[in-house]
Amino acid sequence: MTVPKTSAGNFFEDFRLGQEIRHATPRTVTAGDVALYTGLYGGRFAVQSSESFARAIALDGAPVDDLLVFHIVFGKTVPDISLNAVANLGYAQCRFLAPVHPGDTLAARSQVIGLKENSNGKTGVVYVRSTGLNQLGAMVIDYVRWVMVRKRDEAAPAPDPVVPELTERVDPETLGSALPRIDADAYDGELAGSRFRWGDYEAGERIDHGDGMTVEEAEHMIATRLYQNTARVHFNQLTESKGRFGRRLIYGGHVISLARSLSFNGLANAFHICAINGGRHVAPCFAGDTVHAWSEIREKAEIPGRDDVGALRIVTYATKDLACGGFPGRNGDGYEDGVILEIDYWAVMPR
Amino acid sequence: MTVPKTSAGNFFEDFRLGQEIRHATPRTVTAGDVALYTGLYGGRFAVQSSESFARAIALDGAPVDDLLVFHIVFGKTVPDISLNAVANLGYAQCRFLAPVHPGDTLAARSQVIGLKENSNGKTGVVYVRSTGLNQLGAMVIDYVRWVMVRKRDEAAPAPDPVVPELTERVDPETLGSALPRIDADAYDGELAGSRFRWGDYEAGERIDHGDGMTVEEAEHMIATRLYQNTARVHFNQLTESKGRFGRRLIYGGHVISLARSLSFNGLANAFHICAINGGRHVAPCFAGDTVHAWSEIREKAEIPGRDDVGALRIVTYATKDLACGGFPGRNGDGYEDGVILEIDYWAVMPR
Amino acid sequence: MTVPKTSAGNFFEDFRLGQEIRHATPRTVTAGDVALYTGLYGGRFAVQSSESFARAIALDGAPVDDLLVFHIVFGKTVPDISLNAVANLGYAQCRFLAPVHPGDTLAARSQVIGLKENSNGKTGVVYVRSTGLNQLGAMVIDYVRWVMVRKRDEAAPAPDPVVPELTERVDPETLGSALPRIDADAYDGELAGSRFRWGDYEAGERIDHGDGMTVEEAEHMIATRLYQNTARVHFNQLTESKGRFGRRLIYGGHVISLARSLSFNGLANAFHICAINGGRHVAPCFAGDTVHAWSEIREKAEIPGRDDVGALRIVTYATKDLACGGFPGRNGDGYEDGVILEIDYWAVMPR
Repeated sequence: MTVPKTSAGNFFEDFRLGQEIRHATPRTVTAGDVALYTGLYGGRFAVQSSESFARAIALDGAPVDDLLVFHIVFGKTVPDISLNAVANLGYAQCRFLAPVHPGDTLAARSQVIGLKENSNGKTGVVYVRSTGLNQLGAMVIDYVRWVMVRKRDEAAPAPDPVVPELTERVDPETLGSALPRIDADAYDGELAGSRFRWGDYEAGERIDHGDGMTVEEAEHMIATRLYQNTARVHFNQLTESKGRFGRRLIYGGHVISLARSLSFNGLANAFHICAINGGRHVAPCFAGDTVHAWSEIREKAEIPGRDDVGALRIVTYATKDLACGGFPGRNGDGYEDGVILEIDYWAVMPR
Repeated sequence: MTVPKTSAGNFFEDFRLGQEIRHATPRTVTAGDVALYTGLYGGRFAVQSSESFARAIALDGAPVDDLLVFHIVFGKTVPDISLNAVANLGYAQCRFLAPVHPGDTLAARSQVIGLKENSNGKTGVVYVRSTGLNQLGAMVIDYVRWVMVRKRDEAAPAPDPVVPELTERVDPETLGSALPRIDADAYDGELAGSRFRWGDYEAGERIDHGDGMTVEEAEHMIATRLYQNTARVHFNQLTESKGRFGRRLIYGGHVISLARSLSFNGLANAFHICAINGGRHVAPCFAGDTVHAWSEIREKAEIPGRDDVGALRIVTYATKDLACGGFPGRNGDGYEDGVILEIDYWAVMPR
Repeated sequence: MTVPKTSAGNFFEDFRLGQEIRHATPRTVTAGDVALYTGLYGGRFAVQSSESFARAIALDGAPVDDLLVFHIVFGKTVPDISLNAVANLGYAQCRFLAPVHPGDTLAARSQVIGLKENSNGKTGVVYVRSTGLNQLGAMVIDYVRWVMVRKRDEAAPAPDPVVPELTERVDPETLGSALPRIDADAYDGELAGSRFRWGDYEAGERIDHGDGMTVEEAEHMIATRLYQNTARVHFNQLTESKGRFGRRLIYGGHVISLARSLSFNGLANAFHICAINGGRHVAPCFAGDTVHAWSEIREKAEIPGRDDVGALRIVTYATKDLACGGFPGRNGDGYEDGVILEIDYWAVMPR
């Protein structure tokens, strides 16, 4: 008998605590990916946009956008982790550990760090720590993610429940080691688009990023394929027309990148995301929706041993079809209507 | 009097048996083209995706996707061969003769190898052998194509009919010479996305590739322009709204690339297309259609002198708005409803 | 009190005669941008398409398309100059001063050279000379642009009116200095797509470029973001649905690039734009419109000291949903229905 050659992805009972998964397809990131990423989001952060600017502040060339690295590594994990996911529940403790430059090759692996079957016996929650590595084997990104995954066979026995302890935020004391030192005096605020540096921001400050961006089907699908993310809900209108929403769902990471790009107006010098404390996709986003964003400075932190940059903990909310002058966000235990994303991250700015 | 400067393309009576045509515009293929190709189709074949993977198996860097090479060379031939085509009737005996890498410049030329006027006196069939060459003049691709072309003047005399003999398939004994040797032991199936190698497949085996991809107007037009293919039916809604279908027709090659990308799930290690035996666009594809694909292993062949790779003859069918669990394909002399493409090709897998 | 961190752009009363503005964000142009530009417009000019072709005529590699350079530099000026513009009134005296190659980094600065408040007291016209520079500080492009900008405060006093004198056309005698010499004998017309050289064209000649291209929302937004152009009217359907047109307006430069690409059929050897004498966006263009173009050779000029190339002054008209066989253009003081663009430029062809 012929062995079936296709993969239907893993179901809940296929995961084992401690299991290590090396994900397919390694991917060389190039200037082509960077250009397409610019065409999809319109990013204007000077450090990523300009070799000259990056070198002027003593970096080793313009790094690839942090979120492009995130999306590529995330995409690799999808066929093994979340092809049979009912819901992406969250991610946390994401740290960017080394700059990625065009020409670097990214690969991904994950370890199962938690398993908990749901009481309905039909699904369970899988916790993984996923890691992106470059061609030298150095870690470039590391994050925890948990997803609700279907069981193939409801009769399969439940594993002993293990839920990892997750911190609410990445400790800013740990951010310095992965961060190349910059020449902050050479950082040209006029060229970068803003004169405001780390010292100019205050905890509690709220910033409406103003502009909005309407999303098209072609755009989010091109983006999601660029990340080699195979989650079916983004691509197949034939199936989705009969599904829960009647239409293709936009990859949540697409919304994160749109919000980050919009945040340039107000956070132009937040040139590097060094950690994502957590993210929640509060409501789905579809083609035709117009995305706006606003941010709150949740916390300011010095980074030990670093007088070149300081860290801002930023919580960004993205909305659909709702301008953000009224700072729409949480509403009791939930969120106000129109909010689609809450993302809590650490970024650095020159001091 | 001013000489008209525009070209209306060639009509049937403009072609002469044995005529050689050097096509415009040479094209340097870059990492940018590769990235956009990934964004358009989401390819995950490790050899094309990763410099590190390619070098690990002893290749000289990640080659450009074979079909991207095909589309670019094909695109160059359009202004001279098929601008006045009524129908693309088929292609055959396509061989990929040397790897293409970013930085290589492709040019194309064609020779007219057959001519046969149709009995209606309004059209005729033109057979060409088209060849793609790199900047060193080395052949990288070679194929036969035949198209039905309008006559400018119905009174023009018919040429003596010449129809070239076409083989049903490229002889697998000839595939080895153009194929760099790989280190099959170093081929990492886990990273490549499948543990199944050449020896695991059987003639007659059928594989439903499962996923579907809905096509948008922006996507197929960006693709077709990337290939510098100028066929008008793909771009001009003003004209096409009054035409046979009422809408823009998707370049058949776009469907081929979608099907190839979908085929990763089941054929992940078929890392190189070395020949296309034939292809038929059975029905038109339009924006909004969802493309699925399935494949049959038609034949297995060893390649003389090669213990590193073996060849699989694969026939892939693509459909629109029809999942492929039922393996829709031929139906007597025709095809089942929903089938849009049949393509018959040789690919290699590590042994 | 917290200082607001966002920029709302400059209003009329913020500009001062003689003011110098260094624009954010410097941008390294790469092979990725070139590929995406090809995907968006389908350009076929051999010099830009092929490293081999460019080197064969003694150029230092394939230059980046002149209009891509224009769009990137223009995009940088938007946040400072035209974020509060009511209308882009025109541009003139645009000269391309040095070739740009992948890897070059572009920055932009502008000088205010004219100011004139309108009699309604609500708006005024700002004239700027904008300059694009490469990473060595060499000027690569220089142009004058004037825009009607809103006042923030209608009570702000009017400045003394200053209107710069603008020439109707760039003097062709000045075109030679910025233009690398080519080996015209080595220029292969067959590969370039046309045997017609400078000497074959006549003043007064009209060329219908024939083909049409329908524009999609995703395309013009990807293009405009690629240029990091932040003008809101191109992106935000939520706002524009309540605006003057009820929909997103396509960046005028997108139409210019489409027209230039279509003009290949008839002007294939006009391989380099050396100056833009003026441009007018006569009517808005929206997604779904099909763009056609035609050109008139307005003037022929030798370039002093140059026997390798000659200059053609070309006026190109683009239309929407109107084929150009009837050469639709000016109509008294206005334009015929369907005309959306008139652009008057100098291009060179081999002699």
